[in-house]
Amino acid sequence: MAPFEAMTSINHSGSNFTSSLGRLVEEESQQPIMTADKVDPNHPALQGSLTPPANCPSSKVLNFSPGPTNLPAAVESTILRRCFPDPSTKRLGSMALSHRSPEFGAILRNSIALTRRVMEVPPEYEILFTQGGGHGQFAAVPMNLCPNKDAKATYIVSGTWSSRAVIEAEKYCTPTAISSVNEDGATFTSFPSAERIVAEHDPDSKFIYMCSNETVNGIELHRLPVFDDVDNTTVPPLVVDASSDFTSKPISWRKSNVGILFACASKNIGHPGITMVIIRKDLLGQANPFTPGFLNYETNILADNVWNTIPTFNVDVIGIMMEWILDQGGIEAMEENSVAKAELMYGLIEDSNGFYGTPIDKSSEHRSRMNVPFCVAGGDEELTNLFLVECWNRGIVGLRTVTPFKQGIYLRASLYHGVSYEETVVLANFMKEFAARHSISKDVGETTMVAENISSAMEPASPDSSCVDLSIFSSSPTGVDMALTLPKNFKVSSYTKLSRDMFAPPALAPASTTLR
Amino acid sequence: MAPFEAMTSINHSGSNFTSSLGRLVEEESQQPIMTADKVDPNHPALQGSLTPPANCPSSKVLNFSPGPTNLPAAVESTILRRCFPDPSTKRLGSMALSHRSPEFGAILRNSIALTRRVMEVPPEYEILFTQGGGHGQFAAVPMNLCPNKDAKATYIVSGTWSSRAVIEAEKYCTPTAISSVNEDGATFTSFPSAERIVAEHDPDSKFIYMCSNETVNGIELHRLPVFDDVDNTTVPPLVVDASSDFTSKPISWRKSNVGILFACASKNIGHPGITMVIIRKDLLGQANPFTPGFLNYETNILADNVWNTIPTFNVDVIGIMMEWILDQGGIEAMEENSVAKAELMYGLIEDSNGFYGTPIDKSSEHRSRMNVPFCVAGGDEELTNLFLVECWNRGIVGLRTVTPFKQGIYLRASLYHGVSYEETVVLANFMKEFAARHSISKDVGETTMVAENISSAMEPASPDSSCVDLSIFSSSPTGVDMALTLPKNFKVSSYTKLSRDMFAPPALAPASTTLR
Repeated sequence: MAPFEAMTSINHSGSNFTSSLGRLVEEESQQPIMTADKVDPNHPALQGSLTPPANCPSSKVLNFSPGPTNLPAAVESTILRRCFPDPSTKRLGSMALSHRSPEFGAILRNSIALTRRVMEVPPEYEILFTQGGGHGQFAAVPMNLCPNKDAKATYIVSGTWSSRAVIEAEKYCTPTAISSVNEDGATFTSFPSAERIVAEHDPDSKFIYMCSNETVNGIELHRLPVFDDVDNTTVPPLVVDASSDFTSKPISWRKSNVGILFACASKNIGHPGITMVIIRKDLLGQANPFTPGFLNYETNILADNVWNTIPTFNVDVIGIMMEWILDQGGIEAMEENSVAKAELMYGLIEDSNGFYGTPIDKSSEHRSRMNVPFCVAGGDEELTNLFLVECWNRGIVGLRTVTPFKQGIYLRASLYHGVSYEETVVLANFMKEFAARHSISKDVGETTMVAENISSAMEPASPDSSCVDLSIFSSSPTGVDMALTLPKNFKVSSYTKLSRDMFAPPALAPASTTLR
Repeated sequence: MAPFEAMTSINHSGSNFTSSLGRLVEEESQQPIMTADKVDPNHPALQGSLTPPANCPSSKVLNFSPGPTNLPAAVESTILRRCFPDPSTKRLGSMALSHRSPEFGAILRNSIALTRRVMEVPPEYEILFTQGGGHGQFAAVPMNLCPNKDAKATYIVSGTWSSRAVIEAEKYCTPTAISSVNEDGATFTSFPSAERIVAEHDPDSKFIYMCSNETVNGIELHRLPVFDDVDNTTVPPLVVDASSDFTSKPISWRKSNVGILFACASKNIGHPGITMVIIRKDLLGQANPFTPGFLNYETNILADNVWNTIPTFNVDVIGIMMEWILDQGGIEAMEENSVAKAELMYGLIEDSNGFYGTPIDKSSEHRSRMNVPFCVAGGDEELTNLFLVECWNRGIVGLRTVTPFKQGIYLRASLYHGVSYEETVVLANFMKEFAARHSISKDVGETTMVAENISSAMEPASPDSSCVDLSIFSSSPTGVDMALTLPKNFKVSSYTKLSRDMFAPPALAPASTTLR
């Protein structure tokens, strides 16, 4: 079909690529593996393609996108089963339910009750479902808490999202910004300290705003601050953008004086199109008169979440996610799993002798568990591109999204609930293998061993498969051991930049390759 | 599971009801059918339940809800197949796609291109996807077209939705209202004439706003007005809320001087959570500075619809709906089908000798094809309730949604694309049968015949089924012939109010019934 041309052409490129790789491997398996040419800059993997070759060795797409992204496999199965009932059952799925029907009322109450239970939301908080995503709340928060533009607010600016939030807030209030931007005026690698916030906040502020996980910058507050602990000062209520870390750790609602916490769904709790807002009731009733009705918290709470049509299916999905979290052992289990996945990634990076880097220092308390930024070979463009293409060829996608936010040299592995520990292990193992393959140690014998391993790895898995066989790389959790895999004397400066022109059509890319 | 108690209790009531009906039919099949008692006011059908008994005679739920509601069965199948690919295909469904991925880019372009093709949208219009539903646009339209509150606008107030729109608009502009409210100050049965609008509109208006189908009131403009035809006056551009009739008829974009047309998806084009806005480019660039970024048309057009995260799945579904419309023969075929369904319903009502009524007179040009309001027996409460319960028992639901909008005595059959002509026939046939059953003609022989028919109809379809057998009522399109079915001398005043207490638990409802 014509309108799908773009997508079809992506798939074609993918096929060309894998066929071409298959041929190259077959024809050159006797040659040294360390050959090089440039990666085709038009390769789908470099355009952010999330569609790996259909015959790649992974059993499914391993999606490390920063969101929207997959939900856990078990959740996706439940959604299919519960939300798409067979017509013969005489039951309507949530998409087809009137938002004012008793059936949807039950789904709505269920999703709210489960969220309250999972996140231990105290009774003085209301749970609202809104539309418009995080950006909708960047406007809605100051609109709802500031009766007019002269009202004060304090914004903690710690990265891309809080920067966007304060820009939007300037339309509706008079914000004081407390920024942790680095001396370069562009990068963020930490949050302002609680002490600094207490000292520098505007005491007339209606609220103190912060984003607890900055997805682009890779920094996270693993616990919300408790300002009272600093010097017994009573500071304004906290407004938290928890869009990307909600349900990955507990929230100390009362201790941290949380006034509002919001989370768009498309990271850890559901599909895009719905945003959850948890608001302390005493903050209602001070909205600017020009607040649109559908963004007015009080209006929507008084109408029990159905002042206007609510995205029925998305509400249902959030309930299913919350059920899954409870089944997994609740919020503690979620945090353990998030910590484990993040430690795997950061450990790998730390142990790579600098082959991989991450902008947030090991000494930092703020390394994000949700989004792990990392660079390949100091940001070397060719090697980074080769890395992305090889990931894609193995079914690993989403590491570099084409966004308007400058990420510099960094790729990003996002580890939301939809990414299992086992999937993280597959990525980590590939990263180990890639580092080993592209590192030339001073020890020639060691180099040869690495090359031999890779040579056998590059052979097609079967006559029909044009993908490399990943089976020699352990994908079991216990198989992760950087220290054993990487050459001991490996140094950042010692790797050779190697890549292979595997992506151009055969006519343009002669079978002969050259060692640089 | 505890949070599903409410729903479970509904299902239980349903079971009790059908079991109780089964028993009654078995024990009393020899008794006259015209027995009566009050319908249990707590019966699920009267609470808006959309879950009929699982063993009801219909092969699926026949959902006449005003939205959200079903999409066409073929569309729902395609959604399942295309949006939920098996993981082994290594393809991600649209819900899991990053909104910045090339795969989603193709889906987005596809949905826009198909909409443009189906609705013949000229190139000077942009197609935007937004969030917040119709109410979101009630705010967004004046925010985007009026730089400040002093800016003028003219609102055609013709029912519930345009009334809500003008109330919201008063926050952002200075509206002039041209209302077609009846003398009672509450009901609407027509639109103001084009002549009146030309005469009464504020010439300084930035736009003239109208809702082309008022779902609650049951009135529709089958063609947008062409004001230039009135007296060659140039009037401001038209803003059209086409949420409930979009894609059911052609739009004369240029001739009607359409500036903006918006449609929330949950009626004819998709699932709730997304709203389509089609805007003429020359109207961009005059937004009020406090317009939230995610509601600012220009901001979002400049960002190619992905300024922030877009509901990816909902965009995909709109494309699938548009494909289906093209497959059906395009917008002309859609209009023919809508006309046919509406004519079936209005014809039935007209031919019922007053057993059914509708608030919009036959002489009106504005009877809605999308939403047919009708009353049963002049609004008689018991008979209306019995009607709803018997519909529900047959799998026919959504005729009375519990809404905050007063609908008085009227039920509503909504006939969006998700309702097929054949499904409308099933409803119409039941309505004929119900009318016949509850009409006592002066001709005793005729009454007896009706009662006999119903008596056999009320017998269980099979030993296991507690539902009535509908097979004796034709459900083929050709079977609709009110003139033959209804007694010729039937009069409104001549039917006997009959109902049956079929819904209370057996302990409370003795098997014996009495003729009133």
